Amino acid sequence: MNILILGGDGYLGWPTAMHLSASGHEVTVVDNYLRRNICREENSEALYPVPNLRKRVDLWQARSGYAVRTFFGDLADWDFAAEVFDKTRPDAVVHYAEQPSAPYSMLSRRAASLTLNNNLQTTANVIFAVREFCPSAHIVKLGTMGEYGTPNIDIEEGWLEVEHKGRSHKFLYPRQASSLYHTTKIMDTDLLWFYVRTWDLRVTDLMQGPVYGVFTDETGEDESLFPFFNYDELFGTVVNRFAVQAVAGFPLTVYGKGGQTRGYLNIRDTLNCVRLALENPAEKGMLNIYNQLTETFSVNQLADMVQRVGKSLGLDVTINSVENPRKELEEHYYNPAHTGLLDLGLEPNFMTDEVLAQLMELILKHRDRIDHDVIFRGVKWA
Amino acid sequence: MNILILGGDGYLGWPTAMHLSASGHEVTVVDNYLRRNICREENSEALYPVPNLRKRVDLWQARSGYAVRTFFGDLADWDFAAEVFDKTRPDAVVHYAEQPSAPYSMLSRRAASLTLNNNLQTTANVIFAVREFCPSAHIVKLGTMGEYGTPNIDIEEGWLEVEHKGRSHKFLYPRQASSLYHTTKIMDTDLLWFYVRTWDLRVTDLMQGPVYGVFTDETGEDESLFPFFNYDELFGTVVNRFAVQAVAGFPLTVYGKGGQTRGYLNIRDTLNCVRLALENPAEKGMLNIYNQLTETFSVNQLADMVQRVGKSLGLDVTINSVENPRKELEEHYYNPAHTGLLDLGLEPNFMTDEVLAQLMELILKHRDRIDHDVIFRGVKWA
Repeated sequence: MNILILGGDGYLGWPTAMHLSASGHEVTVVDNYLRRNICREENSEALYPVPNLRKRVDLWQARSGYAVRTFFGDLADWDFAAEVFDKTRPDAVVHYAEQPSAPYSMLSRRAASLTLNNNLQTTANVIFAVREFCPSAHIVKLGTMGEYGTPNIDIEEGWLEVEHKGRSHKFLYPRQASSLYHTTKIMDTDLLWFYVRTWDLRVTDLMQGPVYGVFTDETGEDESLFPFFNYDELFGTVVNRFAVQAVAGFPLTVYGKGGQTRGYLNIRDTLNCVRLALENPAEKGMLNIYNQLTETFSVNQLADMVQRVGKSLGLDVTINSVENPRKELEEHYYNPAHTGLLDLGLEPNFMTDEVLAQLMELILKHRDRIDHDVIFRGVKWA
Repeated sequence: MNILILGGDGYLGWPTAMHLSASGHEVTVVDNYLRRNICREENSEALYPVPNLRKRVDLWQARSGYAVRTFFGDLADWDFAAEVFDKTRPDAVVHYAEQPSAPYSMLSRRAASLTLNNNLQTTANVIFAVREFCPSAHIVKLGTMGEYGTPNIDIEEGWLEVEHKGRSHKFLYPRQASSLYHTTKIMDTDLLWFYVRTWDLRVTDLMQGPVYGVFTDETGEDESLFPFFNYDELFGTVVNRFAVQAVAGFPLTVYGKGGQTRGYLNIRDTLNCVRLALENPAEKGMLNIYNQLTETFSVNQLADMVQRVGKSLGLDVTINSVENPRKELEEHYYNPAHTGLLDLGLEPNFMTDEVLAQLMELILKHRDRIDHDVIFRGVKWA
C-alpha cells in the first residue's frame, strides 16, 4: 500500500512510519516541525536529543534497508497540501498532523488560536485533497478518547442508539471534552463525518487514550530511532511525568483527588491498531470508529504503580496531591467499550511492572538531562 | 444596555440594530461587508438596492433620532476584534458575523475554506475578546435548527437526557448537519460550550429556523431601511425563491419529493426573540439554548401556499419537482420542541396568506429587477 503519514516526525508519526515500512508498505512522511518548534519555544525539550526527520529516515534506511519519502511543509497551507497529495496519490492517509497538547492549547490566546487553526485547517485540507487527488483513499484519523469526556453512562464505540419517547435514532456518541485541544478533535469529527456522508469518503477514526512507551520492534535498543520523550506538563503525559518525577526525586504531582480515570495503551499497540485499521479499511461513505485503549487506570493507581516500581529500582518515591489546575471531574464513572480493535486481532501489551521499569531505567540513564524547572508549572485552565 | 451587534449589515443584523436602538439600548454595529462582497462575486445581488451601512445609520438617525455607532473590519482578525471590544466594553454581544449560506459553503474548496475559517475564527475571537475585555458580557449567538438535522426522534431544546443501560446523562442534543455551513455552526457550539464551562461565560444560543420577511416595526414602508432580499439559490431561502419564481412566471423548483420540513419564523419574531434573550441573560457558566421557530412547513406546503396566494394576485404559478442537488432526506420525521421563547413571552407572527401576499406585492413592484439567470443554477452537494 502507498501510505502517506501526516505529522511523520511526531511521537507516534515516526514509529508508525518505521512500522509500516517494515510491514512492506511504501511510506511517505510529511511534517513542518510544528511540535519541535513549540516545544523549543516553551522550553519543553525532550529527555534525550532526537535527530531531525531527514537524519532519522537515513538512519532507518541504513538499519532496515527501507526507504521513506519526505515532504516538509505546512499542511494547513493548501498549496503545499495539494502538492503532497498530487505527487503521492496515496491509497491511505494516516493523519497525525495536529497540535497534540491539551495544556499547551490552554496556555494563551495565541496558543489556542494556533491549535484551532492548525488542527481544523489541516483536517479540512486533508479532506479536500483526498476528494481532489485520491477520492478512494482511506483516511485513518487519530481521534482521542478525550472527545467523549467522562459521561455518567457507558462510552460506546463511536455511536449511540438513543431511545426517546417511543422512537429511536442512532447518533454519533455525544462528545464533550475538557480542553481546547480535545475540542478541536471533536470539531475534526464533525467535519469528517459531514464529508464522509456528502462525498462518500472512507474514514476510520481511532479514539485513542494516552499512549506510553518508546520501545517498538523497529527501534530495538537504538536510541537514535526512539520517538520523543517529553516529561514536562505541556507535552508529557501523566505516565512520563510521574516516571521522571520519581527518578528526579520530585514528589509525584497528583491533580486533586486523583480519581481521574482514562484508557491507556502501549505505543506498540498504537502501531498495531493503526496497521489493523489500514488492513481493514472503511467502505466508501462509512466512518468506522474504534476506541483505542487496552486498559483503564486512575491517576492514583498510576502513582501507586510508579511508587512500587520506583522502590524496586531503589528510588524513594513520594506522592503529593496538588491543587488541580484543570477543570475536570476528579471522581467519576468511566466504562468505555473497546472491543472493535480486539475483534480485528489486536493483542494488547498491558502495563506491567516490567514495562514501567524498562521506561524508568531509560530515564535513569538520562537523569542528568532532566530539567527540574519544567517538571511542574501549573498551567491553569481558568 | 450597551450592545454590540456583530454582522450588523446583514439580513438580520441591521433590523436587529434598529429594533434594539428603538428599544432604548446603546447600539454599536460591526461589519466587513463579507456577505455583500460574496454576493457581488457570485452575481447574487439583492432584489432592490440596499444603502451601505454608514448611509443606513444616517437614514435611521434622521428617521428615529437614535444614533448607532459603527466599526468596519474583519472580526476574524484579532487586532481588530480586540480594538472593537476594548473601545465598546459591551454588556451584551449579538453574534451574527458568519458566512450564512449553506449552498455557498458547498460551491468550491475556496468557499468552504472561507466559511470554515471566517466562522470559526470569528467565534473564537469573540470568546477571547469577551474573556479579556468584558468577562461578564452576555453573548447571544445565532445558531441554527440545521445543526440538529432531521433525526428520527423529537428534537428537544438544546439538551437530551439519555437513559442507557440503567444509567443516565444529560448531553448537548447530538447534532448532525447537512451542509458545511451548518457544520461550522455545530463547531461554534462545541467551542462556546467548552469555554462556557471553562471560563464561566454567559451564552445564549438561538437555534433559528429559516427566517422570512423584510417588514418590521422600524422599517415601516421605508424601503431604504429594508434588509437584503436575496432570491437566488445561494443567498435566498426557499420562501424568497418561491415567491420570486411565482412573480417571474418561473415554475417553483421543489427539490425532489418536497417532504423536507423545517421550522420557520417571521423576521419580526427573530427581533423579538433576540430582544427576549437579551432581557433574560444566561447566568455565568450557563449555556441557554432556545429553538427559535414558530411553525413548521414542508417544501410542498410552502409551494402550495405560494401557488394559492399567487393566484389571488393574478399569477399563474406552476410547481416543478427537480432533481435534488443536495444530500438530505426528502421525507422524514420532524418534531422540534420550541416552548422556551414562548415561555419568555414571544407572541408569534405566523405565516398567513396576507403576510405572503405583502411580500409578493413588494416583489411585483420590483419585478423588472429580477435576474432570471440566477433563479436556479443547481449547486450540487456532491
